[in-house]
Amino acid sequence: MLEKLKKEVYEANMMLPKYGLVTFTWGNVSGIDREQRLFVIKPSGVEYEKLTPEDMVVVDLDGNKVEGTLNPSSDTATHTVLYNRFSGIGGIVHTHSSWATSWAQAGRDIPCYGTTHADYIYGEIPCVRNLTAEEIKEAYEENTGILIADEFEKRKKDCHAVPAALCKNHGVFTWGKDAHEAVHNAVVVEEVAKMAARCEMIAPGVRPAPVELQDKHYYRKHGANAYYGQNSQG
Amino acid sequence: MLEKLKKEVYEANMMLPKYGLVTFTWGNVSGIDREQRLFVIKPSGVEYEKLTPEDMVVVDLDGNKVEGTLNPSSDTATHTVLYNRFSGIGGIVHTHSSWATSWAQAGRDIPCYGTTHADYIYGEIPCVRNLTAEEIKEAYEENTGILIADEFEKRKKDCHAVPAALCKNHGVFTWGKDAHEAVHNAVVVEEVAKMAARCEMIAPGVRPAPVELQDKHYYRKHGANAYYGQNSQG
Amino acid sequence: MLEKLKKEVYEANMMLPKYGLVTFTWGNVSGIDREQRLFVIKPSGVEYEKLTPEDMVVVDLDGNKVEGTLNPSSDTATHTVLYNRFSGIGGIVHTHSSWATSWAQAGRDIPCYGTTHADYIYGEIPCVRNLTAEEIKEAYEENTGILIADEFEKRKKDCHAVPAALCKNHGVFTWGKDAHEAVHNAVVVEEVAKMAARCEMIAPGVRPAPVELQDKHYYRKHGANAYYGQNSQG
Amino acid sequence: MLEKLKKEVYEANMMLPKYGLVTFTWGNVSGIDREQRLFVIKPSGVEYEKLTPEDMVVVDLDGNKVEGTLNPSSDTATHTVLYNRFSGIGGIVHTHSSWATSWAQAGRDIPCYGTTHADYIYGEIPCVRNLTAEEIKEAYEENTGILIADEFEKRKKDCHAVPAALCKNHGVFTWGKDAHEAVHNAVVVEEVAKMAARCEMIAPGVRPAPVELQDKHYYRKHGANAYYGQNSQG
Repeated sequence: MLEKLKKEVYEANMMLPKYGLVTFTWGNVSGIDREQRLFVIKPSGVEYEKLTPEDMVVVDLDGNKVEGTLNPSSDTATHTVLYNRFSGIGGIVHTHSSWATSWAQAGRDIPCYGTTHADYIYGEIPCVRNLTAEEIKEAYEENTGILIADEFEKRKKDCHAVPAALCKNHGVFTWGKDAHEAVHNAVVVEEVAKMAARCEMIAPGVRPAPVELQDKHYYRKHGANAYYGQNSQG
Repeated sequence: MLEKLKKEVYEANMMLPKYGLVTFTWGNVSGIDREQRLFVIKPSGVEYEKLTPEDMVVVDLDGNKVEGTLNPSSDTATHTVLYNRFSGIGGIVHTHSSWATSWAQAGRDIPCYGTTHADYIYGEIPCVRNLTAEEIKEAYEENTGILIADEFEKRKKDCHAVPAALCKNHGVFTWGKDAHEAVHNAVVVEEVAKMAARCEMIAPGVRPAPVELQDKHYYRKHGANAYYGQNSQG
Repeated sequence: MLEKLKKEVYEANMMLPKYGLVTFTWGNVSGIDREQRLFVIKPSGVEYEKLTPEDMVVVDLDGNKVEGTLNPSSDTATHTVLYNRFSGIGGIVHTHSSWATSWAQAGRDIPCYGTTHADYIYGEIPCVRNLTAEEIKEAYEENTGILIADEFEKRKKDCHAVPAALCKNHGVFTWGKDAHEAVHNAVVVEEVAKMAARCEMIAPGVRPAPVELQDKHYYRKHGANAYYGQNSQG
Repeated sequence: MLEKLKKEVYEANMMLPKYGLVTFTWGNVSGIDREQRLFVIKPSGVEYEKLTPEDMVVVDLDGNKVEGTLNPSSDTATHTVLYNRFSGIGGIVHTHSSWATSWAQAGRDIPCYGTTHADYIYGEIPCVRNLTAEEIKEAYEENTGILIADEFEKRKKDCHAVPAALCKNHGVFTWGKDAHEAVHNAVVVEEVAKMAARCEMIAPGVRPAPVELQDKHYYRKHGANAYYGQNSQG
């Protein structure tokens, strides 16, 4: 069942330790088959060194396990909500990567200080508030997903233009058109988080990059007039 | 004698350089056989590249060497006290890992700023005071262990819920159900120490994570209602 | 066509990931044949793991592609301007290397705090202003090159003595007598940027190195009286 | 001539890139044969990847090259002075290692904040002042050595108890009983410099470790009553 997707999601999971985004089992990647309305996710608490494609767990969009001998990631309910609310996304990553998590612990949005950020993410990376004690008790993981999606609505952010969110005192979620791109964005967020922190250290009170520069870089890589790379008209 | 434990403790010691927790010989791991009331510890000042399972030294709970051609770690008396005072722990690690030691040198507890910390450690990681000149002169290593255990009593901390302590101007001790888990906790403390320092750099005056979030993550992984991983009901 | 130069430029590009200066495709190197008035540059958006010498694109000094099946780097127009304005340089590098980019995002020149900097770069590394919305719209990449060259004229800086510039909110350009030396200088700038930031952290308000010390180190390695290395009289 | 020492010094030089203390050619190690009053040093500006034991240059205690086809390190005169003034030292290292150099650029002594420092170095690591324009012009490298030795006399520091000095706006020199130990101390200084900077970031205004703790750790490893390691009575 979904053998190709399982392989893709397995490979995307294995990119997390390769890129230094995870310690031990602190992260998970999923990828969805939108036609079958099923997604594939890392099992909970399994070490990356022991992970195999067959270990991947199949889950439906109500969050029920459909196939797999192992328990799915404890964050499965968050993935479920994001797939339901963010139409068109094909993969999701959750990590506690060090710099992004430091911003999450600080409870701050990551401002767009430069073109590295603007090349991939339009505007600041939002940091959502803490869940209330009640929301935690009721359905912690599900409410985490709802909080992210609601925040995007409230701020009128397009999930395709801003493929990442920080959760206060917790970690980071990123997404993309598939599992591989979601991991790519997780690497970008970690790098951008690092440079933003250092930039503030070097120049306290620094301001975000001018909007026209952000626009230039974002639209150089995205949309009808993109001219970066080989799939566009150079 | 205790061949299996020697091998385990050897392997746990070799994880210290693998995880970047030690420079040269600056660290040691021990593991105990509670039935025989004997523990196995790294010899003093031996380089990791030259270490073998046979080099491990066997020590009793009075701190006397029982077997081994080499001198045991100079910190053996600290391990002895911790095994005697913290019933149920099976392994102990001491390192000067960089971020944890920076906090120790700063003389500060590491606040719980997020779920990475709360997943493993309940509340702040305590930093114990300096020993007095008298305590140093009398029995430096033994009194280090006594100071840690006394501090846990004074703060009413459970050594199983808080498997780590910083020693002011010195380094860090961690422990766990066995030598392997003690090393695991040493990695966690280093990662948590790093993110806590960066978090304060990003947001001076930041507050610890809400208690309800700390509780949620701690009890998601520990105790009767845990549901993280494969040994619990997912 | 230009097979030897293509190989050199390919190898110089591959040094970027080797020295940790790039993440994904965020960087490019070019090298010029001054006699033929043609330069060779990395194709746009191609991953380093998949890059081959044959992928290199040949461009003339009007910025027109002369040979190659792939689109040249999106930053080609910046390279073109710099080759035209900085006579004698033979190679150019652009990266978003982490510490240099943090300074660029901070919008600050990198002061010369020590001999590591002075060994290679005479005086501070300039950070050029943001392009205006008009300049971005008109010809972003070309105007980036013009801005750098104009800034060097305005500050009376010799491009051979100062082989680097930061672009505000963006990244860093370095150059040298050939592609290899341009990469060498990119490594130097990243190292110098890192130590300058840490130096300010350790001693807020620190002043640049004395001019006589900067002179000593710069002229120990450069010019008629140099005596560093094996090509000079020791 | 001095084949064994050449091999030792070669191997010690190769430890610099292994331990991450050098970029490119920015560092050098020497070792002395006190009976023959000759020392062996890395040639100037040669890349570590291309270095061989045969490349090592033999120099006498007046600083004259005695054997070797290559120019000796440009810092040879500093080594010469240190061997003449610090009797009993057998090896010297100079690097621009990142954290130590950041302190040197900051122009500050590195305070002893903990036992990692005290285990190897008694008290703060001194940072010597800038040479005057006159001293630079007259004999830069020789006067660097004189300045270090004079500073040790002025502060009444024992070169065996304090095997390191920072040079303001420049880098670090360390030494030891032989070339290998000098490199060992260079690693220690870099690690200690890193933790001291982070410690001050975590606790601005932090004070050095208590003297009795410094004494305990220093004398646990050095002198007649040492009991660390396998060469002492455990």
